[in-house]
Amino acid sequence: MASVSDKKMVQEITSMDEDFAKWYTDIVKKADLIDYSSVKGCMIIRPYGYAIWENIQRLLDNRFKETGHENVYMPLFIPESLLNKEKEHVEGFAPEVAWVTHGGSEKLTERLCVRPTSETLFCEHYANIIKSYRDLPKLYNQWCSVVRWEKTTRPFLRSREFLWQEGHTMHANEKDAQEETIRMLNVYADFFENQLSIPVVKGRKSDKEKFAGAVATYTVEALMHDGKALQGGTSHNFGDGFARAFNIQYLDKDNTLKYCHQTSWGVSTRIIGGIIMTHGDNNGLVLPPAVAPIQVVIVPVAQHKPGVLEKANELMARLAPHFRVKLDDSDNTPGWKFAEYEMKGVPLRLEIGPRDIENDQCVLVRRDNREKTFASLENLGKIVEEKLEELRIALFEKALKNRTDRTYTETDLDSFIKTAKEKSGYIRAMWCGSPDCETKLKELADVTSRCIPLDEQKPLSDSCICCSKEAKHLVYWGKAY
Amino acid sequence: MASVSDKKMVQEITSMDEDFAKWYTDIVKKADLIDYSSVKGCMIIRPYGYAIWENIQRLLDNRFKETGHENVYMPLFIPESLLNKEKEHVEGFAPEVAWVTHGGSEKLTERLCVRPTSETLFCEHYANIIKSYRDLPKLYNQWCSVVRWEKTTRPFLRSREFLWQEGHTMHANEKDAQEETIRMLNVYADFFENQLSIPVVKGRKSDKEKFAGAVATYTVEALMHDGKALQGGTSHNFGDGFARAFNIQYLDKDNTLKYCHQTSWGVSTRIIGGIIMTHGDNNGLVLPPAVAPIQVVIVPVAQHKPGVLEKANELMARLAPHFRVKLDDSDNTPGWKFAEYEMKGVPLRLEIGPRDIENDQCVLVRRDNREKTFASLENLGKIVEEKLEELRIALFEKALKNRTDRTYTETDLDSFIKTAKEKSGYIRAMWCGSPDCETKLKELADVTSRCIPLDEQKPLSDSCICCSKEAKHLVYWGKAY
Repeated sequence: MASVSDKKMVQEITSMDEDFAKWYTDIVKKADLIDYSSVKGCMIIRPYGYAIWENIQRLLDNRFKETGHENVYMPLFIPESLLNKEKEHVEGFAPEVAWVTHGGSEKLTERLCVRPTSETLFCEHYANIIKSYRDLPKLYNQWCSVVRWEKTTRPFLRSREFLWQEGHTMHANEKDAQEETIRMLNVYADFFENQLSIPVVKGRKSDKEKFAGAVATYTVEALMHDGKALQGGTSHNFGDGFARAFNIQYLDKDNTLKYCHQTSWGVSTRIIGGIIMTHGDNNGLVLPPAVAPIQVVIVPVAQHKPGVLEKANELMARLAPHFRVKLDDSDNTPGWKFAEYEMKGVPLRLEIGPRDIENDQCVLVRRDNREKTFASLENLGKIVEEKLEELRIALFEKALKNRTDRTYTETDLDSFIKTAKEKSGYIRAMWCGSPDCETKLKELADVTSRCIPLDEQKPLSDSCICCSKEAKHLVYWGKAY
Repeated sequence: MASVSDKKMVQEITSMDEDFAKWYTDIVKKADLIDYSSVKGCMIIRPYGYAIWENIQRLLDNRFKETGHENVYMPLFIPESLLNKEKEHVEGFAPEVAWVTHGGSEKLTERLCVRPTSETLFCEHYANIIKSYRDLPKLYNQWCSVVRWEKTTRPFLRSREFLWQEGHTMHANEKDAQEETIRMLNVYADFFENQLSIPVVKGRKSDKEKFAGAVATYTVEALMHDGKALQGGTSHNFGDGFARAFNIQYLDKDNTLKYCHQTSWGVSTRIIGGIIMTHGDNNGLVLPPAVAPIQVVIVPVAQHKPGVLEKANELMARLAPHFRVKLDDSDNTPGWKFAEYEMKGVPLRLEIGPRDIENDQCVLVRRDNREKTFASLENLGKIVEEKLEELRIALFEKALKNRTDRTYTETDLDSFIKTAKEKSGYIRAMWCGSPDCETKLKELADVTSRCIPLDEQKPLSDSCICCSKEAKHLVYWGKAY
């Protein structure tokens, strides 16, 4: 099966083994996901790419609403004085914000930054509307675009403007805030693993890697096909730091004023980059059914022959209420269509020709492994559902195998450095907790701490891989996007 | 019935007859639609307000997709040189854009404006991707926020940032572009009249009032409760003006290069202002069922008595699959709840108490006229549906009556000026087509031309109301938001 799958039907894209970065850029362009414009560092998300984002939005938004969250919309701009209110936060973001200085022909009395994230705006609002314990928790989310003035940009992975959601919640106490932080981390993890077929390591970030202003940052980390890590989504516990800076207090049942505890959490259009680099192959994109704009493409074979298009339309009508289906009855050859929808990552291809019609069947071809199934038309809906589910699971298994194959465990520094230099993937190793050792490992092995995994507590050894002092945490190290 | 409806249960808001502007501001705050922030001229859209917008988005987005449109996302920023490419367009917008001049600590080599509208970005992209007649039409839409540096702002009606959708389409010829322009105008008109219960006049704008760069601008104009007009949505035909400025050409079947013809069309969060000012009353908001975040609120009466909450929950479970339902079982009194959900404009209130349960019935109260219906629990779903439909139609009829009552027809200038000064509403009058007469009528009567109605062709007289020269068009004149 592997040899068939590796056959390069589409010659236009760079092989991923030759040049992974170029393969990636080829896919985002050739699968019509994005286009460039004269706005440097920003991207145009084209209909096919945006349809993937709409599916991601819908699925996540349902999960947010099921867990009690409400959507709001905050202003695009943050006055400089407001951004400056929380010290660590402004230090983290000020160097990379875009500044509005003029409205029309008038110079503004105070500069406004285009939001890089909206903690400060939410805090100002929460200070206004939270009075009593009865007002808590407040569970808000917003879908919007944010701007960070990046020097080096890549479509979906790092751009000056990107689309995302940012949840911002307020709680009565530390325990509730921590529960929310982990609840949303789990929502992300479940979404990645079960709907995007991307296995993730759930973990906590080191102080060095955490969000500006957070007490603790949690992450879902995914490993791409090339062995580099991608931070898929983050969930932050802010403690009461912002609440103190913005004076967000509530009158508790015991009639005393208390500071709120706060969280925020977000995922962005980066996810689309993650999907490409986890599942894509040398024929193009491979999309998990849950977010594929087209789940089944119907390609008529010998469509000029009597009855073929009629049958194709009939199948389209039968499948359309249950799946996102497209019938391509254009003048292009079946071969061209096969290549086109493989490039676009459509999970399932349905071929129907005169002989199939005679036999009351059609051919289903899975995108991931090109497995062919002759499906009786009678049970078509059920078979399509089964094949999509098989593909969803197979994508996950394949990605998990890649991660397993690329996860190394080291207990001495020399081997750690050797592995980091020779291999690409995660290195599991113990750490003392000092940011100095993180800096040193970055210098020696060009890796950063990805996270302290939540689900693996057993220590590998007693001593830090770097300084040999007492180890505190098992850490996943790696190179990251 | 009218006297009951006018009874002021909620004393906190200003009466609309006393001060319409203050009544409006009271509602947007007390119904929890918006909040202010330190970002001058921008608003925070709170969960209840945003939920209305989400419903508007979903309904319109379905209509756009049914008519073949696809969603995309363009950058937030427009380089100054790009904005400058179409002369009329830049003259119209440059005075009111926000300028980004710095990224981080670095001064940009070219200023970027925050998009006030995205024609220029779409044109640049279309020039890239349109090559052949096979690529046409291109039917794109985007949901986003835009920024216009307004001096005077009011929530939803005029703010420095607002949410909207902007459709931008490209066609092979003039005829196709004009058809699209009118198609989308009709989509808006149907949405306003049948889902928002807001009657509209469909018409064409005068050259003075049309969009910067358009050949023709069409509008749906609604009349608010106070007799002022609101431009609900606009649809523009650009001809090939932008296509020439941006060199958007395609190779036609006859093997010659031709310029594309273009349209754009948009509605914004202004719609929410229109809903408030069309349907609201002295008890607060009144929401059309199609966009109401809560369509039915269940208020248990004597909820401490055995069986009441159980029955309320049972009704909730029965209605929830078909309607947006909320059960308020909080400790607040039924009277408080009645006032609260009237303020929030919930179309239907369902009261259920011990005596109702005995009689196997509940009480339904319509928001618009407080009409009470005893509904048998057996047919509850059907009766709720009927009541919501009755309310939808009644809102439209009431708004239509307001418009009819406030529409005046004049054929001489003195009467025109007298009516404009003494009455508030539309004045139908003939016009020669000259912008000078528009300017003069603005000076004399403080009105602007709202539109040349598409559905009323019969002239009122032969001469212009202002200069008495030959009349070309029947025009709706009025004061506008």
